[in-house]
Amino acid sequence: MRIARLDTPTGPRHAVALGDRWHLIVSPFAAPVVYTGESIPAGEAVLLASVDPRVVVGIGHNQPGHALPMQAWHKSVHTVAGTGDSITAVRGVGTVNIEGELAVVIGRSASNLTLANAFDAVLGYTVANDVTNVDQGAVDERNFQGKSGTNYTPLGPWIETDLADPENVATEVVINGAVVVNSGSFNLPSSVAAALVYVTKWLTLEAGDVVLTGAPGTDLPVKPGDTVDITLAGIGTLSNTIA
Amino acid sequence: MRIARLDTPTGPRHAVALGDRWHLIVSPFAAPVVYTGESIPAGEAVLLASVDPRVVVGIGHNQPGHALPMQAWHKSVHTVAGTGDSITAVRGVGTVNIEGELAVVIGRSASNLTLANAFDAVLGYTVANDVTNVDQGAVDERNFQGKSGTNYTPLGPWIETDLADPENVATEVVINGAVVVNSGSFNLPSSVAAALVYVTKWLTLEAGDVVLTGAPGTDLPVKPGDTVDITLAGIGTLSNTIA
Repeated sequence: MRIARLDTPTGPRHAVALGDRWHLIVSPFAAPVVYTGESIPAGEAVLLASVDPRVVVGIGHNQPGHALPMQAWHKSVHTVAGTGDSITAVRGVGTVNIEGELAVVIGRSASNLTLANAFDAVLGYTVANDVTNVDQGAVDERNFQGKSGTNYTPLGPWIETDLADPENVATEVVINGAVVVNSGSFNLPSSVAAALVYVTKWLTLEAGDVVLTGAPGTDLPVKPGDTVDITLAGIGTLSNTIA
Repeated sequence: MRIARLDTPTGPRHAVALGDRWHLIVSPFAAPVVYTGESIPAGEAVLLASVDPRVVVGIGHNQPGHALPMQAWHKSVHTVAGTGDSITAVRGVGTVNIEGELAVVIGRSASNLTLANAFDAVLGYTVANDVTNVDQGAVDERNFQGKSGTNYTPLGPWIETDLADPENVATEVVINGAVVVNSGSFNLPSSVAAALVYVTKWLTLEAGDVVLTGAPGTDLPVKPGDTVDITLAGIGTLSNTIA
C-alpha cells in the first residue's frame, strides 16, 4: 500500500493510492485504514514530504576496524522536504553531497527492538536524501553544521508499506538525467534491522519518526542547478533540484 | 511575564500568571497576548514542560585551546518533560549526570543572528536539566546514546519573558535538599548570544525551538531516588526526581 501526504485546501492530509486516485485517510497509523470518502485524481495531487516526523535519526555505519560499528545522530525536522522541492545548497563551506537512502517510517512506539522483531513497529519505507555539507565533517563533531540546511532532508514520494525485503532494496541515483550509481541497502555495512535495534536500545521511537539507514555508496557531490532522482526499487522516485 | 504550559481537560494550554491565577492565552507567540477569558487558580494548575519544541539544540562549549570553540547537537524532543516529572535513569551504562542550564525559547523564525541582534527572536527563558549518561561520551560520537533517556530534558517551570540579562543568570543546584553548586550563565566559556549566533548560522530556528546554553559547572552525578531542584535567578525552580 502506498501512503502519501498531500497538500490540500484543508492542510496536509494522508492518502492511499487506489487505481489512479489518492483516497484520503484519517491517519496513516490506524489499522485497518479508515477512509474519509474523499479522493483526488493522482494527476492533480501535490505530494508533500511523505511523513511529518517529530524525530529524524541518521545512522553512521563506521568502517570495519573502527572501534564503534554504528553511531546515530539527530537531524533537524526543519530540514524535511518533499519530492519536487528545491534544496537550498549552503554555499561557501565546501562540497554539497546528496545521499540516496532507504528511510524507515515508524508506525508505533518502539523500544529495545531485537533482530527478530526489528520490523514489527515499522509502518513502511520511503526514499530519503540526506543532503550534507560533507567538508564540515572535520569541524562538526556532532553532525550539526553540515546537515541543517533548508530542505536538506527530502522524504518521498510516498510511504510503501509492502516492501518485500528492506535489506535488499536496489537504489539508483540519477543526476541530470544520467545514472551515476547503482547500489542498494544490501551494500550497507550493517543491516537495516541492526540499525533499528541500535537506535531503539537508546531512544524510544514513536509513530511517524524516521530512521535514515545510511548511504550505501550513494553519496555524490552536486552543484546548484542539478536535478537529483533517487529511485528505490519497490518504493518509487524522489526528485529534487539543487538551488 | 511568566508563560506556563498547563495540563487541562482540553489538552495542553499556555497561560500567563496574573496575581494568583494562570490566565489562558491563545498562543505564547502572539504579541500582544490574546487572553481566552479562562483562568485557573495557581494552586490547582498542573504544569507541563514549559514549551513543546520541534527542535532542541544543545551547545557544547569546548575548553580553551580546543580547535573548535563551540559545537551543537540535537536532542530528541521525545526526552522533553516538565517540572515534577520523574526522570528514568538509564542504568548499567555508567554515571547519570544532571546539568542545570539556562534554556532559550525562540519566539519567531530566526537565521543568521548577530551578536548585536542575538536576542531579538527570543520569546523568553526557562530552566533546563540536560540529563546525560556521561560515561557514554567515549563511545557516542554524536551525543545520541547518552542523551536519549525518558524524561531526560525537563524544561520548566515556566517561560520568563522579562529576564534582565541572560548572560548573568545565577544558577543554584540543590540535590536532596542540599545546595551542591552555585554558578550561573556568566561562567559559560562562551556567551549565550554567541551560542544563538552559532546555531542560527547553520540552522533556521522556529517559534518554540529550544537552545540549551550549556552547563556552567552544574553537571553533577545523581542516583535513583535523588530529588533535583535547579533554580535560575529571575526565572524559577525546576524540580524533578530520579527514578
